Amino acid sequence: MQGDTLLIKSGGAAALTEWQHHFARLMPGLRVYGWDDPFVDARNVKYALVYQPDHGRLAHYPRLRLILSAAAGVDHILADPALPSGVPIVRMVTEETRERMSDFVAFAALAIARDVPALITAQRDGRWANELTGRLARDTRVSVLGLGELGSAVATRLRANGFQVNGWARTPRLLAGVNVFAGEAQLDALLAETDILVNLLPDTHATRGILGRKLFAQLPAGASLIQVGRGVHLDRQALLDALDSGRLRSAVVDVFDIEPLPPDDALRHHPKVLVTPHIASTVSYAARARQVADVLGAHLRGAPLPFVYDATRGY
Amino acid sequence: MQGDTLLIKSGGAAALTEWQHHFARLMPGLRVYGWDDPFVDARNVKYALVYQPDHGRLAHYPRLRLILSAAAGVDHILADPALPSGVPIVRMVTEETRERMSDFVAFAALAIARDVPALITAQRDGRWANELTGRLARDTRVSVLGLGELGSAVATRLRANGFQVNGWARTPRLLAGVNVFAGEAQLDALLAETDILVNLLPDTHATRGILGRKLFAQLPAGASLIQVGRGVHLDRQALLDALDSGRLRSAVVDVFDIEPLPPDDALRHHPKVLVTPHIASTVSYAARARQVADVLGAHLRGAPLPFVYDATRGY
Repeated sequence: MQGDTLLIKSGGAAALTEWQHHFARLMPGLRVYGWDDPFVDARNVKYALVYQPDHGRLAHYPRLRLILSAAAGVDHILADPALPSGVPIVRMVTEETRERMSDFVAFAALAIARDVPALITAQRDGRWANELTGRLARDTRVSVLGLGELGSAVATRLRANGFQVNGWARTPRLLAGVNVFAGEAQLDALLAETDILVNLLPDTHATRGILGRKLFAQLPAGASLIQVGRGVHLDRQALLDALDSGRLRSAVVDVFDIEPLPPDDALRHHPKVLVTPHIASTVSYAARARQVADVLGAHLRGAPLPFVYDATRGY
Repeated sequence: MQGDTLLIKSGGAAALTEWQHHFARLMPGLRVYGWDDPFVDARNVKYALVYQPDHGRLAHYPRLRLILSAAAGVDHILADPALPSGVPIVRMVTEETRERMSDFVAFAALAIARDVPALITAQRDGRWANELTGRLARDTRVSVLGLGELGSAVATRLRANGFQVNGWARTPRLLAGVNVFAGEAQLDALLAETDILVNLLPDTHATRGILGRKLFAQLPAGASLIQVGRGVHLDRQALLDALDSGRLRSAVVDVFDIEPLPPDDALRHHPKVLVTPHIASTVSYAARARQVADVLGAHLRGAPLPFVYDATRGY
């Protein structure tokens, strides 16, 4: 691999130094350049580690062998209309990603069970709202949409906190302690048994806009939403309407169709909403560099690659 | 028990109806009256279920056999200078109390690990603070002060979320997965190994004001506090100073020396503090009525009573 180049677009100039620091230790023979470095020889670029690559750029590297997503999702790469075909795209899934997402969703579900969005509003308004006692985790049904790497880990953590946990997957499966619903046909039944809905679906044609008026109307009145999937899943006006009508009690929203979320956005200032800046599963550079080194190592040995995007499945 | 009277001061007039509803089912022979009911015959009052009873009042009932605290703590009863001696005081500890406190502290610890107090401030200010990625639960040391009924349950739940858990007890003990420090002699060592400190100590002479300048100075810089013990444990000015100097990173505070917390209180408006209105372990009336019925049943059978306050231990 002497001379092989990894091109990085993830986190900007300050992050590049950190990436280079980690790769110097993990893969000393690898050349690591920033996305706009004028000294890159396009013929040597074999790997690209990217988030939202400029459209058309990846097609410029004739020997590109792997595209590594800097995030768990790949929609920010697929959006490139000139994306070179035949180059595998590897999703960023690390043990730390699972841990971080599990920590975050456990936080969010316990916060919703205890009415924390309303408690925060009361704190700000100077009210002593000790009527807001919320409910026990063990009396609360949480339904996880998507039981992939992240969804399965999240469901297991929710169980460890005593929640009653349902899951929704494309096909039936077994997951300890989790009541699994499968396919389109069972979605209605799942939604009817839901106090807190957690969205961890991938971005596919079938899932865009799924968190909309129709779905919210199928949840029991007073249910809540944890949105940690992709921004395109959510019809934001439908969410605002459902919160204002009282159909939904509260929401924790971490991902948005437009990021950064504008300062004057209605979700940001809604008293029933806790907004976080897409940090649910953000993993340290060290952990992501380790994962990239593992993938490149597998590639160089000719071993199967983990977490390769499959266009047929859509994730 | 025909004719025996239970006098209730807990939750006001609206709550009395709910208490009576539950006791009518659980103990049909028991007469249940509100605290200020003019038709109570003082000679029939054998049981009092109270929160902050008016000083001197409990001494008026010559046949009082049991005082039942409506809360886990009993300091609100001991504050009565005319408290009749020789009448056992029973703390309100239910399975639901343990579950609720565990839910709350798990919420608070995960919130602190993910810098949620700072994220809430950023949301309010319209900032996209995606540099606030926080830390993994499994990389975070949580130390629980007090390993009684509640502290043990809380420590176990924190372990289930991956935290590294220390505990502090009066005497050495074994608790699965928890690194136990015992007695005054080991407090310094515990504090030095603490990223998040959880206070669940009882209110005793030795513990008043324990959360003060000396203790905060022994924590590693950037540690955080979860205050769910008693209001008298905390030196509030010392906490504010520690937060402002940066020694402490954040705090979740549920109990206060003065409740309700005044609307203009400095803690309420501090950007590093999440304030909740003493709801960490608030239990449903149904669960508390069940617990009272169990205690009265044991009393009537002459069986040992659970959770009796011991003046020698101080809890």
